Amino acid sequence: MVHRLKIIIPINNDSLNEITAKELLPLESRDFELDIHNLTSGPNFIENRFSDYIAHPALIDAATAAEEEGYSGIFVDCFTDPAVDIMREMVDMPVVGAFLPAVLTASSLCQRYSIITVLPEVVPIYEQLSRESGIRGSVVSIRNIGTHVADLGDSENLVENLFTQCLAAVEEGAQGVVLGCTGMLGVTDFLRQRLLDNGFSIPVINPTKCGVAMLMALVRQGLTHSRITYPRHSP
Amino acid sequence: MVHRLKIIIPINNDSLNEITAKELLPLESRDFELDIHNLTSGPNFIENRFSDYIAHPALIDAATAAEEEGYSGIFVDCFTDPAVDIMREMVDMPVVGAFLPAVLTASSLCQRYSIITVLPEVVPIYEQLSRESGIRGSVVSIRNIGTHVADLGDSENLVENLFTQCLAAVEEGAQGVVLGCTGMLGVTDFLRQRLLDNGFSIPVINPTKCGVAMLMALVRQGLTHSRITYPRHSP
Amino acid sequence: MVHRLKIIIPINNDSLNEITAKELLPLESRDFELDIHNLTSGPNFIENRFSDYIAHPALIDAATAAEEEGYSGIFVDCFTDPAVDIMREMVDMPVVGAFLPAVLTASSLCQRYSIITVLPEVVPIYEQLSRESGIRGSVVSIRNIGTHVADLGDSENLVENLFTQCLAAVEEGAQGVVLGCTGMLGVTDFLRQRLLDNGFSIPVINPTKCGVAMLMALVRQGLTHSRITYPRHSP
Amino acid sequence: MVHRLKIIIPINNDSLNEITAKELLPLESRDFELDIHNLTSGPNFIENRFSDYIAHPALIDAATAAEEEGYSGIFVDCFTDPAVDIMREMVDMPVVGAFLPAVLTASSLCQRYSIITVLPEVVPIYEQLSRESGIRGSVVSIRNIGTHVADLGDSENLVENLFTQCLAAVEEGAQGVVLGCTGMLGVTDFLRQRLLDNGFSIPVINPTKCGVAMLMALVRQGLTHSRITYPRHSP
Amino acid sequence: MVHRLKIIIPINNDSLNEITAKELLPLESRDFELDIHNLTSGPNFIENRFSDYIAHPALIDAATAAEEEGYSGIFVDCFTDPAVDIMREMVDMPVVGAFLPAVLTASSLCQRYSIITVLPEVVPIYEQLSRESGIRGSVVSIRNIGTHVADLGDSENLVENLFTQCLAAVEEGAQGVVLGCTGMLGVTDFLRQRLLDNGFSIPVINPTKCGVAMLMALVRQGLTHSRITYPRHSP
Amino acid sequence: MVHRLKIIIPINNDSLNEITAKELLPLESRDFELDIHNLTSGPNFIENRFSDYIAHPALIDAATAAEEEGYSGIFVDCFTDPAVDIMREMVDMPVVGAFLPAVLTASSLCQRYSIITVLPEVVPIYEQLSRESGIRGSVVSIRNIGTHVADLGDSENLVENLFTQCLAAVEEGAQGVVLGCTGMLGVTDFLRQRLLDNGFSIPVINPTKCGVAMLMALVRQGLTHSRITYPRHSP
Repeated sequence: MVHRLKIIIPINNDSLNEITAKELLPLESRDFELDIHNLTSGPNFIENRFSDYIAHPALIDAATAAEEEGYSGIFVDCFTDPAVDIMREMVDMPVVGAFLPAVLTASSLCQRYSIITVLPEVVPIYEQLSRESGIRGSVVSIRNIGTHVADLGDSENLVENLFTQCLAAVEEGAQGVVLGCTGMLGVTDFLRQRLLDNGFSIPVINPTKCGVAMLMALVRQGLTHSRITYPRHSP
Repeated sequence: MVHRLKIIIPINNDSLNEITAKELLPLESRDFELDIHNLTSGPNFIENRFSDYIAHPALIDAATAAEEEGYSGIFVDCFTDPAVDIMREMVDMPVVGAFLPAVLTASSLCQRYSIITVLPEVVPIYEQLSRESGIRGSVVSIRNIGTHVADLGDSENLVENLFTQCLAAVEEGAQGVVLGCTGMLGVTDFLRQRLLDNGFSIPVINPTKCGVAMLMALVRQGLTHSRITYPRHSP
Repeated sequence: MVHRLKIIIPINNDSLNEITAKELLPLESRDFELDIHNLTSGPNFIENRFSDYIAHPALIDAATAAEEEGYSGIFVDCFTDPAVDIMREMVDMPVVGAFLPAVLTASSLCQRYSIITVLPEVVPIYEQLSRESGIRGSVVSIRNIGTHVADLGDSENLVENLFTQCLAAVEEGAQGVVLGCTGMLGVTDFLRQRLLDNGFSIPVINPTKCGVAMLMALVRQGLTHSRITYPRHSP
Repeated sequence: MVHRLKIIIPINNDSLNEITAKELLPLESRDFELDIHNLTSGPNFIENRFSDYIAHPALIDAATAAEEEGYSGIFVDCFTDPAVDIMREMVDMPVVGAFLPAVLTASSLCQRYSIITVLPEVVPIYEQLSRESGIRGSVVSIRNIGTHVADLGDSENLVENLFTQCLAAVEEGAQGVVLGCTGMLGVTDFLRQRLLDNGFSIPVINPTKCGVAMLMALVRQGLTHSRITYPRHSP
Repeated sequence: MVHRLKIIIPINNDSLNEITAKELLPLESRDFELDIHNLTSGPNFIENRFSDYIAHPALIDAATAAEEEGYSGIFVDCFTDPAVDIMREMVDMPVVGAFLPAVLTASSLCQRYSIITVLPEVVPIYEQLSRESGIRGSVVSIRNIGTHVADLGDSENLVENLFTQCLAAVEEGAQGVVLGCTGMLGVTDFLRQRLLDNGFSIPVINPTKCGVAMLMALVRQGLTHSRITYPRHSP
Repeated sequence: MVHRLKIIIPINNDSLNEITAKELLPLESRDFELDIHNLTSGPNFIENRFSDYIAHPALIDAATAAEEEGYSGIFVDCFTDPAVDIMREMVDMPVVGAFLPAVLTASSLCQRYSIITVLPEVVPIYEQLSRESGIRGSVVSIRNIGTHVADLGDSENLVENLFTQCLAAVEEGAQGVVLGCTGMLGVTDFLRQRLLDNGFSIPVINPTKCGVAMLMALVRQGLTHSRITYPRHSP
């Protein structure tokens, strides 16, 4: 049996579709079909609470459509987990964002870790999500590289900036790092290698991969969210 | 490419091998080969810290052997996560026990959950693991059914006992439950149905499946534990 | 100088306007003008995350309008604090919801308290807000009276149901209670008296009054939210 | 109706009376009369636990007198909250100190904040109060400017010293600051402007104003402390 | 060398001196001389914050006198730890109360424990001390037997009341109990036996013994409190 | 009556026996006989989880033998508390390691403290023990001096390295320090003096002394671990 997963990049353009597909190649499995979609409305990029909110209408529509389309699970490919809580109220299949799977995976591989995100403006969003999810005590720091999502395409620069923040995080006590933006694509292996070359063998958690991998794990196990936590609601 | 996973049931007999294999059928994937082993020495069952410790020598041997045998990951199929920390010092491939993947998966599906285990004697072990892993604040309670591992085979009885404890847990505020013993096999779907029939649509987390599913997720992503947390040690 | 406060009841009808105005009479001050509005679009009532979200567009419009209208502060009169975080990104004047002022006020009068809300369906929302705001450790329990917002009008019944839950909360260790819905109007004094008659002299926190009172306190002090936490965003 | 509030500066001299009255001007309301008193016995200044204790007898006398004098509430104008717990046992009207209202107000405007106080000697007192009040997790740091209370009068110097510590606090992750001494008078607006000029738009919480504002909020709502937390005691 | 320890029962009568001396017999050591004193002023008994405060002047006098009298350490024999923080500012020798040594000892013997005290009125004091000392997460509950300190003399009744509360505590998850009043004398062994006879082999922590034992441990090691936490102050 | 305490240095050589005996001289009491043993098998030194585990068999044998040998208590003289949990399952007398007594003693003398250990490799072990024991919130940092246990013999160098780390810890907010290795012998007084000479009067907690002192306190009081936490197990 093949499970179809709906992967939604919650921005109004397809600029990340191909590179995201490439990032997910290592997760390819004959048991899963990964369909990547962007939104036709919503924000250019999500860099604050308002643009996160702007993505909600199309995300909620996509969720309710997914049931009819026969999907087995939904991955909202953004580190702010936009609308995930609302979508869980509306569908029975598992819905995951990128934040929660990433930090829980980090919790499985080390005791304390840092999140490295794009801009200071989004740091409070991850402070909030860290508190909500109950893992705040394991987060050493939420650092940023001072780069807009639109400018993440320069891979070499991105790896260097991430590397600099990783060193600062390790200095503070981090034993692993979570990349805090799903637009940080194509760099995990290079960053991991850069760290290894400098004597740091620590996990570098990629939230896009983590989200899909956790969704696959849930689907295989027939697990979905609690209806006590997310009571069923039909729009 | 097919990844081989070494699944070790850390008891000195094969009483759980077949039923464990059956439990894992839904996780079958053409990308993974699951090899199930028991130990030839060690405890009959793990029901306290001493029997957990008795399993260590054979587990550590199995870990170092796994590297030569070409495995991609190790799952220690017991809810006390016996020797997992030590094994992580000794091998580079990911090693997971059953406890941590199960509670982290619960954290991804609801806010607060209870663990339901076999005997009062093991409750303090899970209190300890909950504290260590940083998720204690999400654990409503650690309940037990008052049954020895050796007596878990009576499925009907087991489902009823678990159901009773689930109701008590929900009453206390649990939004999901984690089965707190990897010997609680063949009952998850029945228990889930029993709860649904009574109006409770909550996740029932099976630690055996969760452990293997998380290991698969790690292996696919090329992730392993931090060498800051688990410095390399050769025996 | 008279400060004008914009009080928004985030539902699509005026069923609560008058009774809310009456509830706020004790807060009347010649220094403040309280303008109460409902929304012209949005939900009938907020009883889950989806209906909370349905109120967002009109709330965000109301916030940006408030700056031009010369208001000094905004109170979103709902215990789920709908869109408050987003509105804070968009205006410089203070914006408060009902949840946070209520629980912080409770924290100033006793060590541990319970929240008593309408329905089990909203309990997880308050679990989430409690965690986010950092006061989860002071919340003994989040109880409910099993009544829809639409049915809160029967004051006598409401007082009795709240009283029953208050007793249960005190039994669990609560030293005060927070009414967990801004539709629980016209009952605080009766409930307080009912408790006193039974020997319990504990604070009964009314979230509508608390929200307006805290907003008045902020406005008088010239305080508003941090731009590090809520970076300015213009739509 | 006009409520009279008794404001007690718990030192044995009137050196802060006038400047405190001036600080409170923005809170003036025709509904409240603010009576400012110092003690005729007690410490010169409170800079450790012993001098805090020295203020207790006169504070307790002032509290019991306040009932006969017809006051509606008491504000103990010191950041160590001296004798507040004891006074709450003895009177029915609300009694607040400066610490708790200030940190709770900070909690309402940002996620994480620092306290900036006078001397290293009092830092452990605020560590203790932070733990007691349950908001320790939101306190980034408790910093000091190395100045005795008696030397706070040099406003220009004070603003500079506070500014330096504010920058250090923001660097550590603070999103707002609480002035940790009620003798830091006449500087809040200058400090706020100094921060704004340097690009930091963060709340600067003044504990004197916060305490009175919260007391006014409680009195207007008819709220007072829990008798479970503070059982009634007649001397 | 013989160390002299000053044991102060902070009440204005000698009703507990003899029975306290008897309680401490098992701690007798040729290396220590235990001098038991009551106060000549202060409260009859400590059952709230006010009577705790009433003991302060004489306690502080006793502390400063102890230095001249050649004592090596001070034990304030009351579970509210009255004036201990202030006394630590004033003397260099170690000063301990009964609360902190008792709960820390409990933390060394089990994971989670309950405190069983005399009256509901003092429960919030122990909630406060539990939070201050950082061990709140290990306290299952703070229960009481509804008995005034003056009525603790009926040992048989006391054992029965404590036994009832112990059972309730264990039912809630306690693995040990701390007697929450230094007036609960002469009953620990009987209570321990009563529990054993019913199948509960749990530590019953006696705060009087614990306090003296920890003081002896500190004195033997030459340890005393931190001057960063308790800056030196001369009256 | 004289109590005999079995002190086990869990390494396979007697290199630390004499110097440990010397360290314990200040604890000498005519009521206790301290018997110091090393293991005949096990690790050279404990510097990771594997070498900790290597000490288990001999430690467990030593525990069960201690009952027959008439000992009153066991001290496992290592800061990783090796096998202590297992040994508690097997004997009725109190068993303590060095970690828990040391941090609990620190908690009795200051609010926040740092642990200073030998190598970065063992830091995660103390992070784990700090979490387990519930005192993580009081630990400012876990620092190390970058020295192998085998090289701790150079006292002068050791004092200097510890002093450097102490200064860094105090800078971070520590009010006291715990020496994080039982091989740091003969230096506590020198380090304490070095700190005093530089104006820092803070407790320097020696884990070897603390462990024996706490064991003596438990034995004198007739206290031992809870059988709910550590159910009795016979090998």
